[in-house]
Amino acid sequence: MSNITVNGQRLWSSLMDLARLGATSGGGVCRLALTDADRQGRDWLSAQARASGLDVVVDQVGNLFLRRPGLSNAAPVMVGSHIDSQPNGGRFDGTFGVLAGLEVCRALNEAGIWTQRPIEVAAWSNEEGSRFLPVMGGSGVFSGAYTASSVLEGRSSDGARFADELDRIGYNGPAAAGGRPVAAYFEAHIEQGPVLEARDCVIGVVSGVLGVAWFEVEIVGFEAHAGPVLMSMRRDALAAAAEVIACVESIGIGSGEGRTTIGMIDAWPNSRNVIPGRAKFSVDIRHTDADSLKRMVDEFKAAVQRICERRRVSFQIAATSGWPPMKFADALVSEVRKAALNRGYRSLDIVSGAGHDAVFMARICPTAMIFIPCKDGISHNEKESAEAEHVTAGANVLLDCVLANAMSAVNRNDA
Amino acid sequence: MSNITVNGQRLWSSLMDLARLGATSGGGVCRLALTDADRQGRDWLSAQARASGLDVVVDQVGNLFLRRPGLSNAAPVMVGSHIDSQPNGGRFDGTFGVLAGLEVCRALNEAGIWTQRPIEVAAWSNEEGSRFLPVMGGSGVFSGAYTASSVLEGRSSDGARFADELDRIGYNGPAAAGGRPVAAYFEAHIEQGPVLEARDCVIGVVSGVLGVAWFEVEIVGFEAHAGPVLMSMRRDALAAAAEVIACVESIGIGSGEGRTTIGMIDAWPNSRNVIPGRAKFSVDIRHTDADSLKRMVDEFKAAVQRICERRRVSFQIAATSGWPPMKFADALVSEVRKAALNRGYRSLDIVSGAGHDAVFMARICPTAMIFIPCKDGISHNEKESAEAEHVTAGANVLLDCVLANAMSAVNRNDA
Repeated sequence: MSNITVNGQRLWSSLMDLARLGATSGGGVCRLALTDADRQGRDWLSAQARASGLDVVVDQVGNLFLRRPGLSNAAPVMVGSHIDSQPNGGRFDGTFGVLAGLEVCRALNEAGIWTQRPIEVAAWSNEEGSRFLPVMGGSGVFSGAYTASSVLEGRSSDGARFADELDRIGYNGPAAAGGRPVAAYFEAHIEQGPVLEARDCVIGVVSGVLGVAWFEVEIVGFEAHAGPVLMSMRRDALAAAAEVIACVESIGIGSGEGRTTIGMIDAWPNSRNVIPGRAKFSVDIRHTDADSLKRMVDEFKAAVQRICERRRVSFQIAATSGWPPMKFADALVSEVRKAALNRGYRSLDIVSGAGHDAVFMARICPTAMIFIPCKDGISHNEKESAEAEHVTAGANVLLDCVLANAMSAVNRNDA
Repeated sequence: MSNITVNGQRLWSSLMDLARLGATSGGGVCRLALTDADRQGRDWLSAQARASGLDVVVDQVGNLFLRRPGLSNAAPVMVGSHIDSQPNGGRFDGTFGVLAGLEVCRALNEAGIWTQRPIEVAAWSNEEGSRFLPVMGGSGVFSGAYTASSVLEGRSSDGARFADELDRIGYNGPAAAGGRPVAAYFEAHIEQGPVLEARDCVIGVVSGVLGVAWFEVEIVGFEAHAGPVLMSMRRDALAAAAEVIACVESIGIGSGEGRTTIGMIDAWPNSRNVIPGRAKFSVDIRHTDADSLKRMVDEFKAAVQRICERRRVSFQIAATSGWPPMKFADALVSEVRKAALNRGYRSLDIVSGAGHDAVFMARICPTAMIFIPCKDGISHNEKESAEAEHVTAGANVLLDCVLANAMSAVNRNDA
């Protein structure tokens, strides 16, 4: 490990500068993918990179790579995240990971350190998925999860075509998306949850990403007037749903690292003096461990069946979406933990509840993530906030992890 | 008691005849108050009454009284209900009570029986409240609960004025609404609930009408992403609402004759991967006994407070509407029970969960109701259905109750 550190003030300034592009009146950012604000952000980032001696490479789906050459032409160590935002997004989601990467390169420049491997700072296209689906489209294509054409042909809700908008803002690059080796990928990001703050920790050592199973449950009972029907004769779809919701919550509480959420609910006819004949709700079940996730899903399904049979209501459970748990590379996760320890930052092993570009990158190379706290766990919100001290700490850990991988001997298996 | 009985076939035919006016394709009736269909129904009913030798009196809010003179000019025994319907109403709701009253008069005519008191069959204006508010406006004015002008100035959702529509269909009568004594009021009605059918009973001896307390509860927690937030750190407004709903259901189940219903629920932002930050739901609590109703309300409020405090979510409870329990006149209720027994009809003491014109009439004179079963408890629905045999039975009980009161000695206190 070296003794060099990032310039925290310079990193903070760059975050605030980028936050001006697409700034909202409430102190947040609206920089939807492939809009004019996104172009301004990309132009600004490219100019900053070039001024720092980095090469700027753009691929066919608009992924931006800020490349610092290595002593060898081996597979690069890659870091990054995204600079597109939610409609009412904050100043740190995504941008922290990209600008921490840029700051790592600047710190190395100042220290005169040349690494064996090239370092690339990626700004992935359309991570948020707010304007175009799928989410994480850029890293998805790079990692082979999606074809380039499936992303390029995507349409926004106002009918715009991804490829046309990419062309319009001038970021349909010549490079093929992916198909090339990456030695390691690190993504620094705000936690987007309350755990680090609550435990008074500065660095989250992200061991993996929760697997997710999504369901939609519909319960059909018998609609009737609230007055005349005795309690014992009712087939109340909403009362059944409420019992299921309470049960699903218990499954989450009893699952260790798992989480369960009912985010959506609708009842029919939704009239105050009518016993609901129908209720529909979503179920979101998450766990780090595939077996545990399956067990939670089984418990949930059994609970629905048990509750609905006892209440003489019918039900349907539809699995709508999901992905398996993802474990990051042990060696890289250890490096994150070790870097935090060496720097004297209080760290906590944590799992990511949300998806990130790192989830796709983990398919093609050893990957890990570095979390820093965000105020009250708030994200996807103009109020999103992070401490300058934590931003600096996260970038220093990123620097150490990059150096640990980029200085290592070039493996003969590398292309 | 006499040995005469109603003509069940004639009563059934009259029900089917009236159901043709405003008939819907699904086998139901749409005869909204003061529409052309309502006029047709009123015209038909008036013609039937006149052909049966009854006088037709219309009052200032359109209440129709079909009057069979008595041997004296004492206060009448009144029976009745309404002939307006819900938009997708059935063939029996209201019409059964009116046409059973008409059939009682016809049966008395045929038997050559003249009662001491006059008998009046009321067809109350706008019981349903589907087109104009308030519901039960006609009986409400007659009983002094509402002023005539408050009903006459009512506007439908399409802007029509009650008084104008009444004028248009020719039923703004010369008689003052109410302000005159009534010796007793009986209303025959389908149950609109499943109890009689389930207990294999033909006559419901209605002891009263449930008191109702309506509330709206809003719970505010903390909106956050479903992934990153540990179960132990959540302040989930919908999970809190679900626990309250389950608790309110238990209060209903444990209340004896009481009922509790959550008919409406909404959650925000109602997105499948967001922990709801806000949930709002209605609470409908009913009981026959005022003290029990109060106890249920207190339990409900305490449950909300207990649950929300434990879950660290805030709440607001707003009382939106309600009315106290109404007990019908013991003597008249006994007469209904006795008539059923004498006729050999299986009867059951029951409370009405829904409001009826009888609730208002009970304010000004001894009142009781006679229920008959309806198929599956379904009402306010084109599928509403009743057995001809039960219709006949209900009208026979009505006949006996009318005779018991109309034959009695004229009290010198009567006007």
